[in-house]
Amino acid sequence: MTSVSVRSDELARALPGRSQRAGAAKTSPVRDLLALTERPEVISFAGGLPAPELFDLDGIRSSYDEVLRTRSVLQYSTSEGNRALREEVARRYSADGLPTSAADLIITTGSQQGLGLLATCLLDPGDTILVEEPCYLAALQTFALAGARVIGVPYAGEELDLEALERLAAEHAPKFFYTVPTFQNPTGRSHGVDARARIAASARRHGFRIIEDEPYRQLRYSGEPLPSLASFAPEHVLSLGSFSKVIAPGLRIGWIRTTKDLHPTVLIAKQAADLHTSTIDQAAAAHYLLSGRGEPALEVIRRAYGERRDAMLAALPAAMPSGTTWNSPDGGMFVWVRLPEGRNAAAALPDALARDVAFVPGAPFFAGPADERTLRLSFTTYEPDTIRTGLSRLGAAWGGAG
Amino acid sequence: MTSVSVRSDELARALPGRSQRAGAAKTSPVRDLLALTERPEVISFAGGLPAPELFDLDGIRSSYDEVLRTRSVLQYSTSEGNRALREEVARRYSADGLPTSAADLIITTGSQQGLGLLATCLLDPGDTILVEEPCYLAALQTFALAGARVIGVPYAGEELDLEALERLAAEHAPKFFYTVPTFQNPTGRSHGVDARARIAASARRHGFRIIEDEPYRQLRYSGEPLPSLASFAPEHVLSLGSFSKVIAPGLRIGWIRTTKDLHPTVLIAKQAADLHTSTIDQAAAAHYLLSGRGEPALEVIRRAYGERRDAMLAALPAAMPSGTTWNSPDGGMFVWVRLPEGRNAAAALPDALARDVAFVPGAPFFAGPADERTLRLSFTTYEPDTIRTGLSRLGAAWGGAG
Repeated sequence: MTSVSVRSDELARALPGRSQRAGAAKTSPVRDLLALTERPEVISFAGGLPAPELFDLDGIRSSYDEVLRTRSVLQYSTSEGNRALREEVARRYSADGLPTSAADLIITTGSQQGLGLLATCLLDPGDTILVEEPCYLAALQTFALAGARVIGVPYAGEELDLEALERLAAEHAPKFFYTVPTFQNPTGRSHGVDARARIAASARRHGFRIIEDEPYRQLRYSGEPLPSLASFAPEHVLSLGSFSKVIAPGLRIGWIRTTKDLHPTVLIAKQAADLHTSTIDQAAAAHYLLSGRGEPALEVIRRAYGERRDAMLAALPAAMPSGTTWNSPDGGMFVWVRLPEGRNAAAALPDALARDVAFVPGAPFFAGPADERTLRLSFTTYEPDTIRTGLSRLGAAWGGAG
Repeated sequence: MTSVSVRSDELARALPGRSQRAGAAKTSPVRDLLALTERPEVISFAGGLPAPELFDLDGIRSSYDEVLRTRSVLQYSTSEGNRALREEVARRYSADGLPTSAADLIITTGSQQGLGLLATCLLDPGDTILVEEPCYLAALQTFALAGARVIGVPYAGEELDLEALERLAAEHAPKFFYTVPTFQNPTGRSHGVDARARIAASARRHGFRIIEDEPYRQLRYSGEPLPSLASFAPEHVLSLGSFSKVIAPGLRIGWIRTTKDLHPTVLIAKQAADLHTSTIDQAAAAHYLLSGRGEPALEVIRRAYGERRDAMLAALPAAMPSGTTWNSPDGGMFVWVRLPEGRNAAAALPDALARDVAFVPGAPFFAGPADERTLRLSFTTYEPDTIRTGLSRLGAAWGGAG
């Protein structure tokens, strides 16, 4: 006898499910991992947070106090964002060799929103895009929500494999290539001047756009500044910026430097997303930048992070198994480590946590097949002594296994 | 001879265009209109902005000053949002007869973002949804960006046509019905208790969700509070709230009261959208609400808006052509006006602007065929004397035409 379920008119119908694109998105495995590292005794190289003791709390507070003398900061504002703030960001781009006007910029609620807006404006479900392999995790999440087919462009050693980029662009006609060109998350890698020129030429040749995401650009501790990708292919490149790493992330202020053809579309998407970014936070950020306190405060951050990077690089040789390799980034927040053959970073994490030290395995950052030997270490959170203590714990954790 | 364009390998390929969904979105015609009303001599009933002179600037400023004593307000935060803020919002729902815990709530960057997140979580391109006809314009824009097929549920007089809702739900199997149940924008209409019960029953019977958008709920100047739609069908209703009309819009703080089944999906969408809403603004809003200054400040707003509504309703009979009808809302910001047969609101606007008075024609608010005789008047912007002056200008503008 078969059991038949009869739908009575009296019974409620099942609720409609979530959208297909929502079904494609997953919580960040790194966020889930970070929950495990929250015991205060853990020295965590897993996070990607700026060091709060370096925030210019007094300066920022006084900017809020100043702008909150004016009633208009409590009112609705334009979707483009605060004019003085856009002018100051434009001035900085122009001084950096990339002529920019306030009209090219749209303020966003952090650069994460910038990513989402560009995905909305450029992607229909099933469209193909290229990313660096490995790639910033929250970008992968955003592209998954947009229903994109994501293909990773591999690295050849420390350099992006530009021949692979050419081949994949020819084969897949991607809508865009997403890159964090300077001090990338998770690898700390930067594309050199020649690589930038060739990436831009590839975009022109194959007709794809480039999204360059630059949250770390101003966190340089050594080496020479690199030109923006937008300066090589102004019509092809959309640039994302943020104050999260140079003022503070709590303000949630970023921006998109749009191309002329996309500006109206991005502006509509921004309006639909949240009408506009907090009027108060924008006004306070503009006031803070114009107060002249931003640059010395950033210099304090750079000096501290540079020392922390040096401490990590100096302590790594004694802490890592023989045959491990890593890079020496000129800035940013991360060092990318590759364990010797036969080791697996995720498998080693429980031993590390047992010794009160944490890192992020590299695997979740890969769009395609993962390199299980990789891991990401953040060097910005602790002072040099604590970094040394943490790395010596990590050294003990490798033990004889693997 | 045919002209053939040859693509040289040296020439750049055309850039990929914008996405189909981005192509479906348009700028708000109301925003475009508002640009015309910005001459200072125009008395504009077109806007939908809260009156800035009623913002509790001192109270809000002092809350920012207090929370900016703590470094953690400058740091990244959780995607759910500030715990104290969610607890306070939950307490208010529960006191209002809808048991709610902080875990049911996700803080959003204004309720506009809440709308976008729910569209992301629930809609795939081509899905059908129902809206009130006429409907809040920015919601129509958001649903267009999501690629939805939008069908308007008509009104029968001042009441939603509940039989039409039933029929359209049976015919189209919509994913959800979007409603502003209390003091709607643009009409100022509210669904009564019986209508709410029947809308909820319809959702259960036909298996659609309801999004109830409640920015104006607390702006009541007369009549009895109405129960939330969520109290009739807790598993079917997602509620959106906002502090934009009761504290100030510049903070961009709203929230989603989610259902259990959708909470994880909405949280991922929020994380992808902007990681989280400004840590500073959330902390300041929580501090302000808990300071006890919010309720008296809101009482000041209610009293002023109530007087302004009364002034408008008293002056309308002399100002409008004979045969015009309008409603008398118990709260909110808008009165909905219908001109006599043969009149066209948009056609009359240039005459009004020539006399330095403005309104919004009703047509853009319709998802389907528009009622060209309708217009929206906002009564919150000006004090009673100015409202009377503006309406007497409007009375002169109708002239003999039409």
